[in-house]
Amino acid sequence: MKKIALDMDGVLADEFGQFSQFYEKEKGIRITIEEARGKRLSEAFPGAANYIQSPGFFRTAPVITGSREVVEKLYRAYDLFIVSAAVEYPHSLTEKLEWLKEHFPFIAWQKIVFCGSKNIIGADIMIDDNFKNLDPFAGQTILFNQPHNHFADAGRHHRVTHWHEIESLLL
Amino acid sequence: MKKIALDMDGVLADEFGQFSQFYEKEKGIRITIEEARGKRLSEAFPGAANYIQSPGFFRTAPVITGSREVVEKLYRAYDLFIVSAAVEYPHSLTEKLEWLKEHFPFIAWQKIVFCGSKNIIGADIMIDDNFKNLDPFAGQTILFNQPHNHFADAGRHHRVTHWHEIESLLL
Repeated sequence: MKKIALDMDGVLADEFGQFSQFYEKEKGIRITIEEARGKRLSEAFPGAANYIQSPGFFRTAPVITGSREVVEKLYRAYDLFIVSAAVEYPHSLTEKLEWLKEHFPFIAWQKIVFCGSKNIIGADIMIDDNFKNLDPFAGQTILFNQPHNHFADAGRHHRVTHWHEIESLLL
Repeated sequence: MKKIALDMDGVLADEFGQFSQFYEKEKGIRITIEEARGKRLSEAFPGAANYIQSPGFFRTAPVITGSREVVEKLYRAYDLFIVSAAVEYPHSLTEKLEWLKEHFPFIAWQKIVFCGSKNIIGADIMIDDNFKNLDPFAGQTILFNQPHNHFADAGRHHRVTHWHEIESLLL
């Protein structure tokens, strides 16, 4: 059974949407996806880098459309692990566990990995929105489209913009 | 640079010693290493399985003799990751991070992995005290001797009883 390493932020959890909501609430300005393209989140939302330190930021993030249904199918067909680079933000660890329990309750604790660098991950397929994780990975790579990676060349990574495409690719 | 996946409990943190201290404090009975040999911790310390749920259990665990000095040398010579099966006990996550920060301050957050199953770990060498982690691992395996694994046949795993032996093996 092939192993999948599946990222959380920007792939399951709508990190951009959460930044956008927090930003509009605080500053009354709505940043569109178009405006954010090609920018890191810290550039797209000036002065908002501290949002990820706010209690509840990860716990209340919206779920990316279509992810729940497709991940449930993948979970049956593959040896699927959630692999999230969460150790940098210790408070996010329990929030992320609770978020997964609410939105992806079928995922066993055995299949959840919180790490820093993903270079220690051994899997056949990696699904991620960050080049720094996909570039050094030896297996098949799927880049989940996000404003921050929009203009960067996916190169050897297969770019997808919706979970339906992952379903077509892997199921 | 070869990758090492290094376990925490029973390899860096003296889990047996911590159980022993908690048990003696609560019940006034001192369980020796000899008495605990061949028994799981829950068998060696009857009625003490809930200790790991106590706040501070992981945070205040003693450091295994010699580990600090040898790990610091390994950290320079290898691509070393801490890989701890901590996700089952969410409260342990921040305690383990703080424990590492105190006792192994040279280890960067990028090099810390909290997981459930270790089957997703891709490394060259695994150092662990549990057969369930070492048995499915494809690379070189080092079994750290603990009372619970004492009578089990190490088979293809190299059993060590002190960190000096790991230093001789790998440095």
